[in-house]
Amino acid sequence: MGPLLDSVSMETDPQGWSPHEQTIARHAFDLAYGREIETLIHTLRYRCGSMGSVDAVWDLHDFLSGKRHEMDGRYDFRFATLLFVFANLVKDGLLSLDELEGLSSDKIAKISAMSRM
Amino acid sequence: MGPLLDSVSMETDPQGWSPHEQTIARHAFDLAYGREIETLIHTLRYRCGSMGSVDAVWDLHDFLSGKRHEMDGRYDFRFATLLFVFANLVKDGLLSLDELEGLSSDKIAKISAMSRM
Repeated sequence: MGPLLDSVSMETDPQGWSPHEQTIARHAFDLAYGREIETLIHTLRYRCGSMGSVDAVWDLHDFLSGKRHEMDGRYDFRFATLLFVFANLVKDGLLSLDELEGLSSDKIAKISAMSRM
Repeated sequence: MGPLLDSVSMETDPQGWSPHEQTIARHAFDLAYGREIETLIHTLRYRCGSMGSVDAVWDLHDFLSGKRHEMDGRYDFRFATLLFVFANLVKDGLLSLDELEGLSSDKIAKISAMSRM
């Protein structure tokens, strides 16, 4: 089960995230995850469609193993580290700062700064 | 690199396999491997073509991990265990006894008997 299907647990202001911010955060997080999965599905369709050799089969498996490991690390929905997670998603073009509108200006500023590092 | 691309090393009668039998064995082994890979590629094309969900992506990865493990175990080209390997391939419909023609009648009989166990 991927992050998209996890339930959103609304804690009361966990480490400075209001319920409204939590909703925005979860939506943005799922948006980025959905985009990355969509791109991955397109890549898989392309690779499988043109697959013609033994090596291509095991290369695909290696590729998927790497992608899974990478995404497991990237999509970690914990409020304690979420600013860093969002900064990486913005940096990698999977999310725009506009899509985080509604978070406090302090959070947006931190995410923006970290995304340019 | 899969078994298909391994070089055939012609030992002098290793554990009762003449050079002629070694050639036949290698050909039959590669034939079965090629068949299984071909089926796998068809399966991958089908699964990728109809892929529409997050779960399907990671299910495909799990499937490929299992298949790789299974095939690594199944395709073990060592003369000491080759009768058993062939018996399993025959049992699983990946090779017919006819395709082992040229091996000694003693070997064929052992493979045939083990394939029915």
